[in-house]
Amino acid sequence: MAFIQTDTFTLRGYECDAFGRMSIPALMNLMQESANRNAIHYGIGIADLARQGYGWMLMRFCLRIHQYPRYGQTIQLTTYPTIVEKYFIYRDFRVLAEDGTLLADATSTWLVFDMEKRSMVPLPGFIRSLSPPVNVDPLPKLPLKPDFQTTIIEPTDTKSVEVGWLSIDQNQHVNNVAYVQWLLESIDTERLQTWELAEIDLVYRTESHWQDWLQVQSMTETRESILHRIIHRESGKDMLLARSRWRINQ
Amino acid sequence: MAFIQTDTFTLRGYECDAFGRMSIPALMNLMQESANRNAIHYGIGIADLARQGYGWMLMRFCLRIHQYPRYGQTIQLTTYPTIVEKYFIYRDFRVLAEDGTLLADATSTWLVFDMEKRSMVPLPGFIRSLSPPVNVDPLPKLPLKPDFQTTIIEPTDTKSVEVGWLSIDQNQHVNNVAYVQWLLESIDTERLQTWELAEIDLVYRTESHWQDWLQVQSMTETRESILHRIIHRESGKDMLLARSRWRINQ
Repeated sequence: MAFIQTDTFTLRGYECDAFGRMSIPALMNLMQESANRNAIHYGIGIADLARQGYGWMLMRFCLRIHQYPRYGQTIQLTTYPTIVEKYFIYRDFRVLAEDGTLLADATSTWLVFDMEKRSMVPLPGFIRSLSPPVNVDPLPKLPLKPDFQTTIIEPTDTKSVEVGWLSIDQNQHVNNVAYVQWLLESIDTERLQTWELAEIDLVYRTESHWQDWLQVQSMTETRESILHRIIHRESGKDMLLARSRWRINQ
Repeated sequence: MAFIQTDTFTLRGYECDAFGRMSIPALMNLMQESANRNAIHYGIGIADLARQGYGWMLMRFCLRIHQYPRYGQTIQLTTYPTIVEKYFIYRDFRVLAEDGTLLADATSTWLVFDMEKRSMVPLPGFIRSLSPPVNVDPLPKLPLKPDFQTTIIEPTDTKSVEVGWLSIDQNQHVNNVAYVQWLLESIDTERLQTWELAEIDLVYRTESHWQDWLQVQSMTETRESILHRIIHRESGKDMLLARSRWRINQ
C-alpha cells in the first residue's frame, strides 16, 4: 500500500527569522517530522529499523525555496517516497500555500546502515518491497555525487563550532538540520541582510558526535552561489559538503 | 474581558533531546507562542505595541518541570496574565498531560519599553486596564530581584559565543530562548547525561544583538544548583543572570 503524508502547519513566531520569513532550519525540521510520520505508516520508522539493528542515514538533500512562507501563514507539507533501489530510497517534499502556490520543494536520498557493523547495507527486504505512490510527479533524481563534492575548496571564511547537547538527537547523532544552522550562521552579514537563500544542495558524508569540534568553511563560487564544507577539526574528515544559491530579497 | 489561552501541541521529534525528553528551548518556544496568541486576544500583541512605539521586554521567567513530556505526547499549554501593576505585568503558564497531570509550570514578569527612548516606561493605559482572568490560581509572584542577582559569581566554567543570525527575532533582538540554549550548552557532560533540569530561574538584564560576542559563565552553587551569568564580552554588561536546579534523571 502507498502512503502520501500531508501535514498542515501554521508558522509560529520562533520559526521565523529577523525578517518574518520562515527560517530554513524550521522548514527542514517540519520536513523531517512529516517524513518520520510517513515512514511510520510504511512500517519503516526509526523505531521499526532500530528493532532490527538498522538506522536511517540521510545522504543527499536538495531544498529549493520559491517563495518564503511568513509568520502566521498556514502551509501544507506533503512527502512520499518516490523510488526504491538496491541501496537507496528517494523521498520528495512539497510545500504549498493555502491557495495552492508552490512555496518550496525538496528531494532527498536515504540509505540504511547496520548499527553493529557501523556500515551501509543494501536496503533490507521490508524496505525494498515498499510501494511508492504512483499518482505523483517525482522531482529529478539527485546525482549521488554532485560536481561540488569534488571541487577543492579554498575557504575564504572558516569558523569553529563545538557540537552542543541541543544538537544531538535521539540516535545520539548530530541532527541533520544542525549542520545547516552552522552553515547559515557562517554566511556574511551583507548577504544575510539583503539576499535570501534560493536553494541548498547538501551531501552528508560522515556523522559527528557531541562535543566534537567542527570547522565550517565557505568559499564564494559566483555572485549567486557559495560552496560549503564542514569538517571534523581533529581528523580532517568531511562531515558535509554543500552548495547554496542566493537571490536578492524578494 | 478576560482571556485564557489554551493550546494543544503534540511533540515533534526535533523538539526532544537525546533522551527523548522535551527540550527546554522547545518548551519555552511553545510558551512564548501561546503567550503571543493570548496577548493578541487582549489587543496587546507585539504588533499592537509596535504601532504605538512600544515593545515588550521579558524581565523574569521561572520554569519548573515536574515531569518531562516525551516524544509523541500531546500536551495542553495554558497561559494568562495574572497581575497588572504600574510597571509590570505578570503571566503564568501551565502544562498538563492529557490525563491532567501537571508536567510543568512557569511564571514571568514583563515590562514595556519605549522604542524611541530605548527605556522602560509605565505600562500604557491600554495594557494597564486589562482584566486578568479571575478563576485561576496564580503562582507566587516572582521577586523582582532574586538573591542570585547580587551573588558574586566566580566562574568555574566560561564559554564564548557569537550571536548568530538564527538567534535574532523579528524585533532584531536576541530571542529570550537563545540565552537559555547557550546556558544549557555550557553545562558539564556528566550532569547533562545523568541529571535533569528541575527548575530554571532567569533575570533578563540587557539586550544583545547580532554578532555580539557573549561570555557564558557558570559556577556550581550546591550539588543541585548552578549559578549562571551571560555577559557582553566587550562592555562586561550583564545580559542574563540565572539559577538552575537539577535532580537525578527520573
